[in-house]
Amino acid sequence: MFRPEIKVIDCTVRDGGLMNKWQFPDDFVRDVYKSLCQAGVDYMEIGYLSSESAFPREQFGSWRFCAEEDLRRIIGDGEKRIKLSAMADIGRIEYDDIPPRSESSLDMIRVACYVHQVDTAIALAHHCMDKGYEATINLMAVSTVGLRDLNEALEDLSRSRVPIIYLVDSFGAFYSEDIDTLAAKYIERLPDKTIGIHCHNNQQLAFANTIAGIINGVNFLDATLYGIGRGAGNCPLELLLSFLKNPKFRVRPLVECIEKQILPLREKIFWGYSVPYMVSGVLNQHPRASMAVMESDKPNQITEFYDQMVNLVENI
Amino acid sequence: MFRPEIKVIDCTVRDGGLMNKWQFPDDFVRDVYKSLCQAGVDYMEIGYLSSESAFPREQFGSWRFCAEEDLRRIIGDGEKRIKLSAMADIGRIEYDDIPPRSESSLDMIRVACYVHQVDTAIALAHHCMDKGYEATINLMAVSTVGLRDLNEALEDLSRSRVPIIYLVDSFGAFYSEDIDTLAAKYIERLPDKTIGIHCHNNQQLAFANTIAGIINGVNFLDATLYGIGRGAGNCPLELLLSFLKNPKFRVRPLVECIEKQILPLREKIFWGYSVPYMVSGVLNQHPRASMAVMESDKPNQITEFYDQMVNLVENI
Repeated sequence: MFRPEIKVIDCTVRDGGLMNKWQFPDDFVRDVYKSLCQAGVDYMEIGYLSSESAFPREQFGSWRFCAEEDLRRIIGDGEKRIKLSAMADIGRIEYDDIPPRSESSLDMIRVACYVHQVDTAIALAHHCMDKGYEATINLMAVSTVGLRDLNEALEDLSRSRVPIIYLVDSFGAFYSEDIDTLAAKYIERLPDKTIGIHCHNNQQLAFANTIAGIINGVNFLDATLYGIGRGAGNCPLELLLSFLKNPKFRVRPLVECIEKQILPLREKIFWGYSVPYMVSGVLNQHPRASMAVMESDKPNQITEFYDQMVNLVENI
Repeated sequence: MFRPEIKVIDCTVRDGGLMNKWQFPDDFVRDVYKSLCQAGVDYMEIGYLSSESAFPREQFGSWRFCAEEDLRRIIGDGEKRIKLSAMADIGRIEYDDIPPRSESSLDMIRVACYVHQVDTAIALAHHCMDKGYEATINLMAVSTVGLRDLNEALEDLSRSRVPIIYLVDSFGAFYSEDIDTLAAKYIERLPDKTIGIHCHNNQQLAFANTIAGIINGVNFLDATLYGIGRGAGNCPLELLLSFLKNPKFRVRPLVECIEKQILPLREKIFWGYSVPYMVSGVLNQHPRASMAVMESDKPNQITEFYDQMVNLVENI
């Protein structure tokens, strides 16, 4: 039995772009867009909303910025059959660089923040809402946040006007019992909000933890085609839509897009389960060290990496 | 907090051998054996126990048979610090070809059967127990078994002397809620038995479902190094030991063995998540069709495979 409140947000281009600086050819982004429309996915997060001054255009692809002319190039002139979302990082977007919604193809802006940035994130999300957008706050790296800080952040969020708050497992460190505990806490402390979940696959638990979220009442679900995303990647969208019983969803367009666009990309850039990502997940660490070793010329020297990481954590 | 009753069974060679006809060089099997001893794993399932007449030796490696001289070549003369297990398939081992335990390095024989073979499996397991071995029955492909047949099989098993009964997700079709339901049923219907779990990773849920088993009171846990196994593979042992809190377990020896033996093997044979395996898992089908396409010259033609499988299932 499906739950009509559930919305699925595809983050293929936004989170996948963390692996190639968003340098996707237009036909890739267009095929993802079309397949998501056909599959009945609710939102496509097409990139980050950044000020041009924050990143050099020559190093980063269009989806680091999500300028309106770039969005238009993808969606064309037809009727838009999926909502578009962009993520905003604190400090990388000026208020003045956010157009009013009437001048934008974006429907939703998701503000990502660490716990100490919650107040700034609420202000930015309110600003986006005042400009006409739907807004969420995605509180990152909760696996590293102490109980008092978390309670305080949830208290601040509960008093805000932001209607959707995300539980984010940035490091892929959570087990399903952690999701049970945290989802229950978010729902209890944020009784008037919708809760979302965004998982990483360091311990092969992104899909399982997304299901744990669903069971606990989480209604906004992030996923990506074939799990593409930073490091070990995300919850695979094709698995999630196969699990959800909502008859509006179609899996076949996703399979087609994986065949045409994702498998060829996978030949060029790697994401997914590997021992370095597993180690950073188990040790509840940012994936930057594991990404560095995976991108180095010795990705298979995993014992040396394991020792380094264990020593690092033991000496904190 | 760890649960002392939990035992971990590594199936790297036995289940991994389904991908290469058990043609592992001795140094591979010896390194796996040593690393499992160092890691504190409870059992190593080193292969299948088969009669020589059941398979031609020239096509199958030693671990299709588990002859005593082959076992001796691996464990050497030192003290054995891990129990050895072999799996027996109904109809592929003659009673007379099973040596008494006093003449064997094996400690446990696990009898794999489908639901219609339960009586034969019980007789074989009793025979093994009478020869001095520990024994389990692994009831395969439960995701395809109707309720009345399952109840009858569990009734037969409850009346047997076999002390350990496995819940097996042969097709990687189960979600954690299925494991909750089935583990509770096995425990209720088999109150005097230990319950085990063996999962496949078609939907990236092998580890998550093993955890679901643990939470529900399952105490014998199957896993393999880096998830090696038929098709999408199994629950990764390095993830499972990282999760379990028993201080007797060590993860580092597993990482070493993955570096030395498993990653080089992965260059030659593929196992793990892919769309064809996901499709057979979602559709609750035997992985033979998905293995065939993965081993063909068109493993990336996944839309064609998806259509074939969906048509097949809809026309049953």
